[in-house]
Amino acid sequence: MRRFVAHNARNLITRRRNNLTTCVLQHCTFPLRFLTTTSPGYLSGHVASAGSASASPITLDTINPKVLKCEYAVPRRNFYPCSDVVCSQRLQQELKENPGSHPFDELLYCNIGNPHSLGQQPITFFREVLALCDHPAMLDRAETRGYFSADAVKRAFQILDQFPGRATGAYSHTQGIKGLRDTIASGIEARDGYPADPNDIFLTDGASPAVHIIMQLLIRSEKDGILCPIPQYPLYSGSITLHGGSLVPYYLDEDTGWGLEISELKNQLEIAKSKGITVRALVVINPGNPTGQVLAESNQQEIVEFCKNEGLVLLADESMEYGEEDISLVSLQSVSKGYYGECGKRGGYMEVTGFSPEIREQIYKVASMDTCSNISGQILASLVMNPPKVDDESYESYSAEKDAILSSLARRARMLEDVFNSLEGVTCNRAEGAMYLFPRIELPKKATEAAKAVNTAPDAFYARCLLNATGIVVVPGCGFGQVPGQWHFRCTILPQEDKIPTIVSRLTEFHKAFMDEFRD
Amino acid sequence: MRRFVAHNARNLITRRRNNLTTCVLQHCTFPLRFLTTTSPGYLSGHVASAGSASASPITLDTINPKVLKCEYAVPRRNFYPCSDVVCSQRLQQELKENPGSHPFDELLYCNIGNPHSLGQQPITFFREVLALCDHPAMLDRAETRGYFSADAVKRAFQILDQFPGRATGAYSHTQGIKGLRDTIASGIEARDGYPADPNDIFLTDGASPAVHIIMQLLIRSEKDGILCPIPQYPLYSGSITLHGGSLVPYYLDEDTGWGLEISELKNQLEIAKSKGITVRALVVINPGNPTGQVLAESNQQEIVEFCKNEGLVLLADESMEYGEEDISLVSLQSVSKGYYGECGKRGGYMEVTGFSPEIREQIYKVASMDTCSNISGQILASLVMNPPKVDDESYESYSAEKDAILSSLARRARMLEDVFNSLEGVTCNRAEGAMYLFPRIELPKKATEAAKAVNTAPDAFYARCLLNATGIVVVPGCGFGQVPGQWHFRCTILPQEDKIPTIVSRLTEFHKAFMDEFRD
Repeated sequence: MRRFVAHNARNLITRRRNNLTTCVLQHCTFPLRFLTTTSPGYLSGHVASAGSASASPITLDTINPKVLKCEYAVPRRNFYPCSDVVCSQRLQQELKENPGSHPFDELLYCNIGNPHSLGQQPITFFREVLALCDHPAMLDRAETRGYFSADAVKRAFQILDQFPGRATGAYSHTQGIKGLRDTIASGIEARDGYPADPNDIFLTDGASPAVHIIMQLLIRSEKDGILCPIPQYPLYSGSITLHGGSLVPYYLDEDTGWGLEISELKNQLEIAKSKGITVRALVVINPGNPTGQVLAESNQQEIVEFCKNEGLVLLADESMEYGEEDISLVSLQSVSKGYYGECGKRGGYMEVTGFSPEIREQIYKVASMDTCSNISGQILASLVMNPPKVDDESYESYSAEKDAILSSLARRARMLEDVFNSLEGVTCNRAEGAMYLFPRIELPKKATEAAKAVNTAPDAFYARCLLNATGIVVVPGCGFGQVPGQWHFRCTILPQEDKIPTIVSRLTEFHKAFMDEFRD
Repeated sequence: MRRFVAHNARNLITRRRNNLTTCVLQHCTFPLRFLTTTSPGYLSGHVASAGSASASPITLDTINPKVLKCEYAVPRRNFYPCSDVVCSQRLQQELKENPGSHPFDELLYCNIGNPHSLGQQPITFFREVLALCDHPAMLDRAETRGYFSADAVKRAFQILDQFPGRATGAYSHTQGIKGLRDTIASGIEARDGYPADPNDIFLTDGASPAVHIIMQLLIRSEKDGILCPIPQYPLYSGSITLHGGSLVPYYLDEDTGWGLEISELKNQLEIAKSKGITVRALVVINPGNPTGQVLAESNQQEIVEFCKNEGLVLLADESMEYGEEDISLVSLQSVSKGYYGECGKRGGYMEVTGFSPEIREQIYKVASMDTCSNISGQILASLVMNPPKVDDESYESYSAEKDAILSSLARRARMLEDVFNSLEGVTCNRAEGAMYLFPRIELPKKATEAAKAVNTAPDAFYARCLLNATGIVVVPGCGFGQVPGQWHFRCTILPQEDKIPTIVSRLTEFHKAFMDEFRD
């Protein structure tokens, strides 16, 4: 199967290289050239041109089959950020070199939760402190200090004091600098109203390493299962597959705003058991990704009870309130999330509670394989958990920056929700606390047949046609999992606000044309 | 077995808590209180106090046995940086709270390759550029720009231009920012005299993630083997064990300055084959860690030939010259190495050549699970590969900083080599290009018996006694593997130069006393 895909990809490249610009799709009026830019072939072309033809003994038949299998657990378009970074570079180059060659003059990225790439500016206070910690010589001279806010200077001094010899260039303790973990624990406590222990916190390079550590710990074989929401961001499915376990799906209920029903959890748990699978953990993503919903407190309580009763580790992608004796809990946070959106800094932490000391040692052991996480990310994680306070010099500008981001996001979300709900055959839940919308589309039979004719899922077909016609980049629902026979796409609310009207009008126009083309 | 260890550890803690300061070791005159600070019990105590006693369903019997097994592949003292970070905090606290409570007034860290933690200062130019990229507002104002060197300003502008919208807070391409990879490829080319392709470069958070990616790719089961040097830094053994493979050891020849003999590789390959193990790759660490030797060019040629003939991937922990068609090669670099020693930044890259496009895709897929590496580390990796040039404003200060570090390291290495070779029963090869020395000690029978009586390897016993008596922290050879029956310890040359005479005299005095105590 994989060989077929690779072979097929190569054919697509060849066709792309032959500059085949006319449409070969029976039912599609958009040029294939752009269609293929989001197809697997595109990146294969990139790789093929980069790689050397070798007599390497390493072949697809001789590598770890779990790596190969990942391809199916996690759709290529998510592994290959083809619809964003790579593709955008190519398409943007084409737009630059040959303006007018496309039916749009710029790409509109609604595909990835990467706010700064779309023009969102960093929070000034955070970056001031990071810069001062990178180059502390600036702190030691009054004239350079004067260019920073007083609280940024004070904070940088405080942070540097937590590094022996101010050495931000040294490896830290595997769990991260103790003083920074103290700050984070205080921040958690202030936010959630229950105590947090800095010794429970492991600072990590974003959330992904924490997920891998826990999967590494829990999964012994494909007979170990992890309950994961569907739809779901593919980090979890990918990590479970790589570590050789089984993803046990539970479906979020779109009709109740992507609700998490305990009955569904119980049902799926029983099904897994009947297949001989031992479920080890429950993954909860809150707010949902790609679904954007926020779990009600009562729902969170039920989930904790369920995990306790069933003896499951709760892997919470965001903090939840709980009593730490109750349950084995791994709570994940990343500086990529939140209004500040500092994705490139790769800061984050996991808070690990309710495990025995012996198991904690094992978690520590796996974490220590990578020595420690990057120090800038560690510092930033402490800053987002302890931003300027009301009496600080930065407070006003910090609050203004934060509020501007949040209120603009809310307006953007509303505009996009409204347009989705106005389109024929499209329904869309509200983005309650996330940067994502996950509208559902009822596609006409002719459209699903056209998709089938090009070996593509119907929502992927829709997304490609959308890209080709409008330059709007979204991720099809098949990249996240969904109830069989239903189709969605994920659209972030992140493009800058002045672009939203363009997105709304292009999307509306495209959708009407698409439906007119394919209506049964 | 593990339970016994845990039980034992708990007993040790109890004893430590009872403040048992007198010596219970038959042959040891040093207080047990300090002996146990480097024992497994210490950290268990730390964990036990941090963790909550829980009814967690996760037990040592139900976790992934590969995680448990790692404990044996990689000695605890390396997983637990007990002899450095954790222990030092405690010991330093004791020294502070109760001066005179130990036979030394400060700890002397010779245990970890973490130069900045021992007072080495960062290279100014690198930190200037990092600070400017973190907070580009400083670039836009003439008065703040004026506080940086002209070439740091210019470089920061160049780097920011490689980020769409200057967004250093955004996720990058999975392989890293293309412009930074261009710089690194040019740097490799300038250094090695053969072309490098930026598409072959994957920027990573230090070297560890790259090692894990390749192990993930190659290891299918315990029947897949990886040839690794012994002695060896435990990252490789740990990663192989976690991914379920077999470490196939090859012994470096101490008598020829830790030479790598092809006959030994062939011999071990045959032994592995006879056990039904398919060897997939050869790991070469150059300069050696912990052994410090540099491979001769002719030796490197032989290694490449060997890999080519035997169909092995060459995993080179440092670049080697080769023709990229020849062989499947993964070359690793990290900003933790080199004179600049920026361990905390977690920058690094792997250069991947000689794989088919299909396999390259799989490598990309695994790498993309973690989205991208941290941007500060990416920038720093580009800086170390393209430092100031002779006409740049920073060149003079940069060269002075670099030369001061390197010449001081050379003097420190010489002083420590000399003292080791002057001690009874100790021989030590030269540190050719690394920050490590790995002296061999012939221990008297009485000492090995005393070690056995406390369930400790003889070199670990020696290292503990050394710590207790002098505050000098080293890592025993059993942490790296060695020829059975031989004993070593790893000693870095990193303590600041003014501390070396103290180390020399304390070490000399201790060693004489130790030998007097245990001489047969």
